[in-house]
Amino acid sequence: MPVRATPAIPSGNAEYTAKAKEINERMEAQIPASLRLSPNLLADLPVDVTGIPETCGLLTEKELEITELDATGLCAKLAKGELTAVETVTAYGKRAAIAHQLVHCLVDFFLDEAIERAKELDEYFAREGKVVGPLHGLPISIKEQVPVKGRFASGGFLSLVDISKDDCLMIKILRDLGAVFYVKTNQPQSINHLETVSFHGRTLNPYNINLTPGGSSGGESALLALKGSPIGLGNDGGGSIRDPCAKCGLYGLRPTSNTLPKGGYHHYHFTNDGSVAATGPMCRSARDIDFFISAVRATQPYLKDQMLIPLPWSVPDKLDRKIRVGIMMHDGVVTPQPPMLRALKLAKAKLEASDEVEVVDYVAYEHGLGYDIIREIYFEDGGSTVRRVLKEGGEDILPLTEWVISPPHTFEHTVLQSWDLRYRRDKYKQAYLDYWNDSAIDVLLCPPYPGSANPHDMSRYWGYTAIWNLMDYPGVVFPTGLKLDPKVDVAYETTEPMSESDKYFRDFYDPDYMAGAPVCLQLVARRFNDCMLMAAQKVVERIIKS
Amino acid sequence: MPVRATPAIPSGNAEYTAKAKEINERMEAQIPASLRLSPNLLADLPVDVTGIPETCGLLTEKELEITELDATGLCAKLAKGELTAVETVTAYGKRAAIAHQLVHCLVDFFLDEAIERAKELDEYFAREGKVVGPLHGLPISIKEQVPVKGRFASGGFLSLVDISKDDCLMIKILRDLGAVFYVKTNQPQSINHLETVSFHGRTLNPYNINLTPGGSSGGESALLALKGSPIGLGNDGGGSIRDPCAKCGLYGLRPTSNTLPKGGYHHYHFTNDGSVAATGPMCRSARDIDFFISAVRATQPYLKDQMLIPLPWSVPDKLDRKIRVGIMMHDGVVTPQPPMLRALKLAKAKLEASDEVEVVDYVAYEHGLGYDIIREIYFEDGGSTVRRVLKEGGEDILPLTEWVISPPHTFEHTVLQSWDLRYRRDKYKQAYLDYWNDSAIDVLLCPPYPGSANPHDMSRYWGYTAIWNLMDYPGVVFPTGLKLDPKVDVAYETTEPMSESDKYFRDFYDPDYMAGAPVCLQLVARRFNDCMLMAAQKVVERIIKS
Repeated sequence: MPVRATPAIPSGNAEYTAKAKEINERMEAQIPASLRLSPNLLADLPVDVTGIPETCGLLTEKELEITELDATGLCAKLAKGELTAVETVTAYGKRAAIAHQLVHCLVDFFLDEAIERAKELDEYFAREGKVVGPLHGLPISIKEQVPVKGRFASGGFLSLVDISKDDCLMIKILRDLGAVFYVKTNQPQSINHLETVSFHGRTLNPYNINLTPGGSSGGESALLALKGSPIGLGNDGGGSIRDPCAKCGLYGLRPTSNTLPKGGYHHYHFTNDGSVAATGPMCRSARDIDFFISAVRATQPYLKDQMLIPLPWSVPDKLDRKIRVGIMMHDGVVTPQPPMLRALKLAKAKLEASDEVEVVDYVAYEHGLGYDIIREIYFEDGGSTVRRVLKEGGEDILPLTEWVISPPHTFEHTVLQSWDLRYRRDKYKQAYLDYWNDSAIDVLLCPPYPGSANPHDMSRYWGYTAIWNLMDYPGVVFPTGLKLDPKVDVAYETTEPMSESDKYFRDFYDPDYMAGAPVCLQLVARRFNDCMLMAAQKVVERIIKS
Repeated sequence: MPVRATPAIPSGNAEYTAKAKEINERMEAQIPASLRLSPNLLADLPVDVTGIPETCGLLTEKELEITELDATGLCAKLAKGELTAVETVTAYGKRAAIAHQLVHCLVDFFLDEAIERAKELDEYFAREGKVVGPLHGLPISIKEQVPVKGRFASGGFLSLVDISKDDCLMIKILRDLGAVFYVKTNQPQSINHLETVSFHGRTLNPYNINLTPGGSSGGESALLALKGSPIGLGNDGGGSIRDPCAKCGLYGLRPTSNTLPKGGYHHYHFTNDGSVAATGPMCRSARDIDFFISAVRATQPYLKDQMLIPLPWSVPDKLDRKIRVGIMMHDGVVTPQPPMLRALKLAKAKLEASDEVEVVDYVAYEHGLGYDIIREIYFEDGGSTVRRVLKEGGEDILPLTEWVISPPHTFEHTVLQSWDLRYRRDKYKQAYLDYWNDSAIDVLLCPPYPGSANPHDMSRYWGYTAIWNLMDYPGVVFPTGLKLDPKVDVAYETTEPMSESDKYFRDFYDPDYMAGAPVCLQLVARRFNDCMLMAAQKVVERIIKS
């Protein structure tokens, strides 16, 4: 019997329960009767729900065609007048409503407002014969923490819910470029899980609803995997773009930090600047990453946001030389589960057989130490703010929240301990850069997570993504085309766990229960090498899939 | 009776006194007898000692000619074989020894080692017919905190003295480019005064030895003003490049942080990353700033230092449009003293009369608040590390050290208070950027300090420089050609102080005692606009001096 989407997973006191109920009822009431799936269908869902949007009968042929297109494809058609903004957002809005009923991915649904905006765009296009900007008519789904004027937002706790008074800078820019907003998506309690379960309820993985869609931008990944959005906006401080993309077979880039604006994004704490999250796109094609960032960066957001660095964005069509690809089979802490190891081996064989790239084995440099450092950085306050904010909302702490703020990584630092921590951070980063330079690689191919998507509430290791947050190295996740196959991905090749975390992942591995989950890989480059990384990703993916 | 350079100004316990004496004797012993000024001369120094190197008889005509050249000029002649590296560093070394006897600016003197290196460079040039790099044979003076292999260094306290085992990255780069090191220069206790007095003793202002040369890179500014160095290397976290340049009539840029390497520089504390110091050149011409940074940046130091941002460096010969110059007559906290106000008025009149630039009045945006924020950031530990390190060395605290770590600005923060502080910092910076954008200025002309150089131990306001450290806006200081003239700069035009600090500066202002101090101005641009700033500085200085 598969897990079902259940609202308001964290329990709480009476006030909390009433408020969470109200928020969930508000959300559910936003889905009109015309977009409701039949109770019979919902009563007997398969484990893999990705086929339902096509077969449920709520979408027209044209709507199904539109929702097959990626952002780049949509914008090309919108710019030629082959699609209207209204029909585009209507198709995506309908499909998002269906997705929500299957995997509980939305926290706000405002298709009517979106259609009004789309009408204005269509009128502009009809009148002026041109688009308002490169994203004219493009529906973009937005993670809850990102303020969109008049829409629901929070910092990951019920006590921090808010109706945004204004667009944040990123949303202003996207709106000016022609984007149409229609949904906001779920994120976990504290926005600090690689899963997505909050006072809005639990979001499921469309490929196997017994599994997590990842997190913290897991409302986005679940929605995107069901094609309820062409492109979404996430934010990644420990894996929160790459992890949900990896668990749902999507493309996602965590760019070098402070290259895209995230001013105004909600979070529960004051500026903990020991490491900085980076916002970026989550999408269904690699080219959409380039398309999205090109459009945003061309507006020179660094003139308006004091955090931003004015670097150019231009992904080369071709790399100017044969690139050196490092391959890291594991990080020395947690052994990849069988489907991830299979993907790595396949990639290695294909890349080694190619003349286009040079392949070298890459041994992880003290990733365990780096992971310890960034975990210590996340909650220098010993988690006291999380506990306070929970208490203020009468909201019970979830096991993954408790885990992430628990000792030994988390304890209340004095300022001197914080200075010392940041000193160790910088020393580690310098040593890592020296090591990377010695390896002379251009990009590193590695797992984004120890496995494909895991059962709910088990995402207790962030090392494969968080290490690159610490380093501030851009990382892009992309699908290999493989899925966990219980016939092939039977068992680990080794028996000795490398760590407690490794043992944990070995213990819960269950190929039958976890079947069908897509397998993604991660490609990483040195800080600020985002454009080279995206050019290399194209080559690497092509070779792997050849 | 003028103040004299006195070694080991901070008192201390017996162990401290012995060790400071040993360090000072080591330094004094490095000056050979042949480079000693006559006791008669030293017994009766004038207040302005800038003329003594020319008249003391220790330098040949050729050596005087060489020491008149700036870095760009020297390197051009060295590259053409018109000067040898040996004669160049010999001339500068001799003049540095003279300077030290006048204003106590050095902490290490190693001309013999420098001549050995210069010989190698000359041999290379003779053999290969070309230079090893753009800085071939250029003597560069180095602030004490910057590690040069085998040479004396400290973090601003006697307990933290060290003979450096290795060059830091910046020194490695300069050495590879052909630079020759021959002296290291004094900095104040804690490296946190806009003055220069330490266990090495007190450094004096060559234009008026009753005045401070500024700080913290005041060994550099005193040496440069006496032409004992063509170019020096400083580090600026609150004004430490700009202030000493301003007080000694020099040129100095504090670039946008993390664009030049400063990894390995000594400091007494662990990573306090609430604001980041920036290293940069101090020199005797504006073109030397460009020359120095061009050479360093061309080596791509960002590939080696994990902190650095890979931005290009290219100062345009001409600005592509008429620039808008804001003029800020005061910061709303401390009224400029008469010579500074005279310089501002002159600059304003000249710039307004020019067709080349557009001039607008600029009212400071809450500089008092910004100054409070950065002062709170400097010592989040309540100054406890400073007190501990002093205690470990048996070194008594100096009044200016006590002042900078005292309440209300300084108190021991919890991590939550530190997060809150950094949140206020980012909010202020965003509000300031919005304000700057509304003003639509390209560059801002403003004082670098409330006045020209002040009497020793009086530098109790950093607001005119530190505000730009907070903002991380590049700031360049340059001489106006004016000096404090007791006949003209008689009294303040207003009588009401704007603040306690203002009252303090009004109270000690004494045009007769402070006569002869050069007056510099500061030009500031938005973060990362260093190259435009340097192009604009050229125009502004030319107009002011026209």
